[in-house]
Amino acid sequence: MRATFMYGAGDVRVIDVPDPTLQQPTDALVRVVQACVCGSDLHPYHSMPADEQGTPMGHEFLGVVEEAGQDVTTVKAGDLVVAPFAWQDNTCDFCSEGFQTSCRHGGFWAAGGIGGGQAEAVRVPLADGTLVKLPVAEDSALLPSLLTLSDVFGTGHHAAVRAGVGPLTSVTVIGDGAVGLMAVLSAKRLGAERIILMGRHKDRTDLGRDFGATDVIAERGDEGIEKVRELTGGDGTHTVLECVGHRPAYKQALGVARVGGVISRVGVPQYEDGDIGWNLFGRNLTLTGGPAPVRAYIDELMPDILDGTYEPGKVFDRTVTLEQTPEGYAAMDRRDALKVLVKP
Amino acid sequence: MRATFMYGAGDVRVIDVPDPTLQQPTDALVRVVQACVCGSDLHPYHSMPADEQGTPMGHEFLGVVEEAGQDVTTVKAGDLVVAPFAWQDNTCDFCSEGFQTSCRHGGFWAAGGIGGGQAEAVRVPLADGTLVKLPVAEDSALLPSLLTLSDVFGTGHHAAVRAGVGPLTSVTVIGDGAVGLMAVLSAKRLGAERIILMGRHKDRTDLGRDFGATDVIAERGDEGIEKVRELTGGDGTHTVLECVGHRPAYKQALGVARVGGVISRVGVPQYEDGDIGWNLFGRNLTLTGGPAPVRAYIDELMPDILDGTYEPGKVFDRTVTLEQTPEGYAAMDRRDALKVLVKP
Repeated sequence: MRATFMYGAGDVRVIDVPDPTLQQPTDALVRVVQACVCGSDLHPYHSMPADEQGTPMGHEFLGVVEEAGQDVTTVKAGDLVVAPFAWQDNTCDFCSEGFQTSCRHGGFWAAGGIGGGQAEAVRVPLADGTLVKLPVAEDSALLPSLLTLSDVFGTGHHAAVRAGVGPLTSVTVIGDGAVGLMAVLSAKRLGAERIILMGRHKDRTDLGRDFGATDVIAERGDEGIEKVRELTGGDGTHTVLECVGHRPAYKQALGVARVGGVISRVGVPQYEDGDIGWNLFGRNLTLTGGPAPVRAYIDELMPDILDGTYEPGKVFDRTVTLEQTPEGYAAMDRRDALKVLVKP
Repeated sequence: MRATFMYGAGDVRVIDVPDPTLQQPTDALVRVVQACVCGSDLHPYHSMPADEQGTPMGHEFLGVVEEAGQDVTTVKAGDLVVAPFAWQDNTCDFCSEGFQTSCRHGGFWAAGGIGGGQAEAVRVPLADGTLVKLPVAEDSALLPSLLTLSDVFGTGHHAAVRAGVGPLTSVTVIGDGAVGLMAVLSAKRLGAERIILMGRHKDRTDLGRDFGATDVIAERGDEGIEKVRELTGGDGTHTVLECVGHRPAYKQALGVARVGGVISRVGVPQYEDGDIGWNLFGRNLTLTGGPAPVRAYIDELMPDILDGTYEPGKVFDRTVTLEQTPEGYAAMDRRDALKVLVKP
């Protein structure tokens, strides 16, 4: 089959690889119907050292079950399913507590002999704990929105949930990428009435307004902090959803958080040390977040897509074939595209 | 009157200063009956640059109201009262939300023209929001325990509350100083069944066991982390109450926190940058805590002292006169004393 591999910074290729096969009775084989490129795929796209082995790419996909192992009971051949960006048993204590990305028996796509989602097919381990059946047809117009359940919608939701967003909390969202926009939508969905979006790409922040942002701040750094404070009587907001992952975004989050507030990060931090001295401690701020256990949220979020209440699939502004995936990476890297849908 | 001043590292003196007087109609004058030396007083005792002006010391005291301003309604001359380590109006929005240490109109003792508690008397601003009447006589044996309401009991309680300690959460307390021991007691009081105390002073950890610690780990650093993990099936504990404030204690906290757990700091961080990369983020850990709004907790905690359920005053293992306060600092610095009570 054809699959997307990365061989170093800026070097993405679609190559021939052996077809995946069932290896465990708990596996399922899924033919990919839709996949996509993630903002986090751009991190290695910028920094990966050249490697002639390459690494498979993609952790967001939905597709049709081609074959299920004998121990798989919740999905069967022919089912349309979505996969979270991590696979898990969904039964261990960590999963039961809502931390599926730390499953005792789980793991991530494109690692440890498991393929990536930007491919024609994927072997899915622990299929019962991982795959969720989609009650629509393979040609449904809802598929792009349902695909966001594999990562960005659940990740934005996680940011908002961990921050404790609700009707009484003001919100700042840092970052106008797909996750930031999903954080806006999630905050709105959880009842927030004041949602300030910090981003400087007008087409994206316009979509953010569509998703529920009440204010947009294009400035960054101290200037951006000042603008948010102006909007909030000098105080900042109760919650800050940091959807970037770079150190300046964390500094910005510290600057716009209100006394007693929460900074919730879902952008994978591309740094280790950060300011956790008096700036964080003195005002009783809380720093939380992490890799979203999106499996935990699919059942809750899916109905709002199925009934048309929310259309998170609007984050996809370009569609490519599997063979065109390298162009998809390049377009996202140039910021020509917000998020690229891949149709194998 | 006589008052304690610090003039530089290791240089504490008791000097003559003008008697405090009412300056605002919301002020009260309190004659100090009991005060004490705080672990945080040792930070400047180690590092304060020499300063011939000196700075008043002490932020924990209880005493008798000598005179109340005309706008003060909740306490009157003759009342025995306890003061939190910060003064506040207790009515602004930050106070109402439970963050009295960030009161819009409040401040801290021994700063901005307000004296310290290690003195014969103190002018208390915003007396209605700050002072709490104690329903006992000036010679009550409960006074040392009631004095802990001014800081260490409320601070230990804050650590536990912000961490979400309850019957289902395992707890690690880092630090066997007075705040660490109060964190143990507070965790026990909130229902925790497994409380691991990390400390290496046997007399203190013995008191910690008395307060509710189920296990004591004397080792520090990686060795200490390993021991906690051995006790918890390799996982660490749901909550970590960091009661030290130095960077190695934070590293230790990261090492012993369970997936999805909470690190709650109440030791004022003596550092700025710390590891908030994948070690914190990857396991969905939460970092919280800050200066305890002890005013918020006095009403809840006092009854347990009055009825004898808890005796937090056991943390005082030495009593000095006001004139002997410098010896009290030295004894705590040498770790000869856990916490020193000062009786002017």
